[in-house]
Amino acid sequence: MTTAIDVLDPLLDNTHKGFPHASPPLHRSEIGAQGWRVLDGDLPLPLAVIKRDALQHNLGWMQGYVNGRGIGFAPHGKTTMSPQLFQRQLAAGAWGITFATVGQLRIGVAAGVRRALIANQVINEGDLAAIAALKAGQPELRVLFLLDSLAQLTLIEGSRPAAPFEVLLEIGAPNGRTGCRTHEQAVALARKAHDSKAVLLAGIECYEGLGAKNEDAADTAYANALMQRVHDIARQCDHDNLFDTDEIILSAGGSAIFDLVANQLKPSLKRKVRGLLRSGCYITHDQGNYRRYISAVNRRLGCADSSGLQAALEVWATVQSLPEPGLAILAAGRRDISYDLEMPIPIGFATRGSHRMQTAPSDWKISALNDQHSYLRFDAANLRVGDMVALGISHPCTTFDKWRWMPIVDGNYAVVDAIVTCF
Amino acid sequence: MTTAIDVLDPLLDNTHKGFPHASPPLHRSEIGAQGWRVLDGDLPLPLAVIKRDALQHNLGWMQGYVNGRGIGFAPHGKTTMSPQLFQRQLAAGAWGITFATVGQLRIGVAAGVRRALIANQVINEGDLAAIAALKAGQPELRVLFLLDSLAQLTLIEGSRPAAPFEVLLEIGAPNGRTGCRTHEQAVALARKAHDSKAVLLAGIECYEGLGAKNEDAADTAYANALMQRVHDIARQCDHDNLFDTDEIILSAGGSAIFDLVANQLKPSLKRKVRGLLRSGCYITHDQGNYRRYISAVNRRLGCADSSGLQAALEVWATVQSLPEPGLAILAAGRRDISYDLEMPIPIGFATRGSHRMQTAPSDWKISALNDQHSYLRFDAANLRVGDMVALGISHPCTTFDKWRWMPIVDGNYAVVDAIVTCF
Repeated sequence: MTTAIDVLDPLLDNTHKGFPHASPPLHRSEIGAQGWRVLDGDLPLPLAVIKRDALQHNLGWMQGYVNGRGIGFAPHGKTTMSPQLFQRQLAAGAWGITFATVGQLRIGVAAGVRRALIANQVINEGDLAAIAALKAGQPELRVLFLLDSLAQLTLIEGSRPAAPFEVLLEIGAPNGRTGCRTHEQAVALARKAHDSKAVLLAGIECYEGLGAKNEDAADTAYANALMQRVHDIARQCDHDNLFDTDEIILSAGGSAIFDLVANQLKPSLKRKVRGLLRSGCYITHDQGNYRRYISAVNRRLGCADSSGLQAALEVWATVQSLPEPGLAILAAGRRDISYDLEMPIPIGFATRGSHRMQTAPSDWKISALNDQHSYLRFDAANLRVGDMVALGISHPCTTFDKWRWMPIVDGNYAVVDAIVTCF
Repeated sequence: MTTAIDVLDPLLDNTHKGFPHASPPLHRSEIGAQGWRVLDGDLPLPLAVIKRDALQHNLGWMQGYVNGRGIGFAPHGKTTMSPQLFQRQLAAGAWGITFATVGQLRIGVAAGVRRALIANQVINEGDLAAIAALKAGQPELRVLFLLDSLAQLTLIEGSRPAAPFEVLLEIGAPNGRTGCRTHEQAVALARKAHDSKAVLLAGIECYEGLGAKNEDAADTAYANALMQRVHDIARQCDHDNLFDTDEIILSAGGSAIFDLVANQLKPSLKRKVRGLLRSGCYITHDQGNYRRYISAVNRRLGCADSSGLQAALEVWATVQSLPEPGLAILAAGRRDISYDLEMPIPIGFATRGSHRMQTAPSDWKISALNDQHSYLRFDAANLRVGDMVALGISHPCTTFDKWRWMPIVDGNYAVVDAIVTCF
């Protein structure tokens, strides 16, 4: 509809990193039927793969969690920017999808998204006009974005929109990122928004994730204080009839401490409230940062780690050199895997010709990354040049953006499907 | 030829980050004629741009430097992975292009590269077969890759190549990355390579960049010691007639202290020697890490910084919120700009409607990045919501890999051309 380039079933070929050298070009949807097996060396390394069963488990687990709280789910699409994964999230029951930019929204609309949050200020005339054009092209489409300053509202008004934009009032924290800092500032802005013909005030948004420390007491206190401020502002806006929609949206929720806000997204107001959680990283989870956070979530929920979110994203790399005792150089680096929160985590290996994965010893550590290399340190390792090592990740977002496509694999690393990304 | 997807003049559309929302799809080559102007808001932000004049200057400066040393240039293509930039490097006089993987090589061949180094071990059967297939499809193509272990040689032999692969013996440093650690090990491997029917020993490679500290005396000592080892090994291999080609290739050179090895790439041997420098980041240079290194290079060369390499890569972002005194939140983050060596460097801004860039005050600093946001700190700033800020980068490689296309702009930020990337 709005795109000329097919983002749902594009043609892929060996100009795409990880695509088999000798394969003819294939449409994405044809890849699952090729019989490729990662552990047989059918795909060149490095290669990022998504594990089908963990992915399916996570989609169901998170939607079930949200359903159980009587709220809706608008997972953040910026994590994967994958139309195929957006479709799975919607099929699992998501109310809509969240984006960071209008360009990201466009990919979502092409994937079938009809309810979208842009969890960001939209400001520029071109971006505002693009939202209007997307809505004109798709009458069912609903788009809400964030408002946090009178300056922004003035710019929106200056763009002279033909129809008002739906906005959520963003509440921020002192020393935080965007968002109104005080009750008075927020209510004053809500009043201006209500009075403006350029926007409809549809609810309130906040993001608790930046305050997370992975300490139960501190995180609970932080989330409660933030949500208390949000409730106070929501109640006053409700009392003063500043909301412009019949249903008020209240949205929060990153991927780290979402359980500490999820129960606070349905305060009692005069109008009906729709709570919306926005977690994004749950979809593949990870072996590092979110593993630690979700372990605490599981503990708070009384859920065993084994039945909670599962790590679904791995990057496989070849051992290219064993130049010194205790050191293997792997042919994957900063161009292939996340490094913004911590180094990759070795989770397994497959010796050449074995066609099966073994668990990596716990003393294996990645000590450094170069652009195209990883330094694997160990006390002892039965590794040879040509063996394959599986690296777990910390922070899914910054691995997804290094790959234009990824295979989906079964428990034996046979390729059963594929996704593309649109960064 | 070897690719079905056109990497030279592909169709781009608004599913590509930074492409104008309302533009029809365009072939890459059509973009320069559209009259788009970054400072008029014709392209959505964030946006990475390449400055035409700095790019041209850098291409000429570096090729001139290499020519002056009587050596050849095989710039590392992994920096940009842009077929259009490979073509400019070749047009400027490069002998060939360097790559990190066989997949990268394929993009280069599609761009017209006919002499290529893979500055990495090639090991897997599929990768070896792909090199052979590329050469079969393009008889003029010459490909050399690195050899640093007997284990690797054995795997190459096990792949039973129809024709031998050209290899360079890699010399590494203790506590370094890949490469033979000792003279004896290197010469023994050279002897095995010479005796093998699977490879032709065509020369020697090393990489001095990992030892760089940006301290003249230490860097000079490090480079000299490494090159002394390389010369000793080269002389012994030459004396023992272990090289299998008439011309011996000697290659070194990253982007930080290349001047300390460039004069040492033509040792006197029985056979003719071709020195090859491999610097990659020079093409756009940067405002951070390489700026500091190149300032030292300039000093050693007696060249003024103003006539040396120029920063050609910037990311522009919108001021989306001014939530507290001294803090602006910009709508660009870890998905858009390098952060692996240091934070982005604010270099300029354009107030809304001014259509012109002003220099950023020196107290402006980016203190942190989130996935989609930057935190700009300042003592005082005449910034408003909706203004545009230009961020300089540190480390070109990790900005290039976040963009599928980039406009090339003139001195007034009018778009005059465009490149695509193939990561």
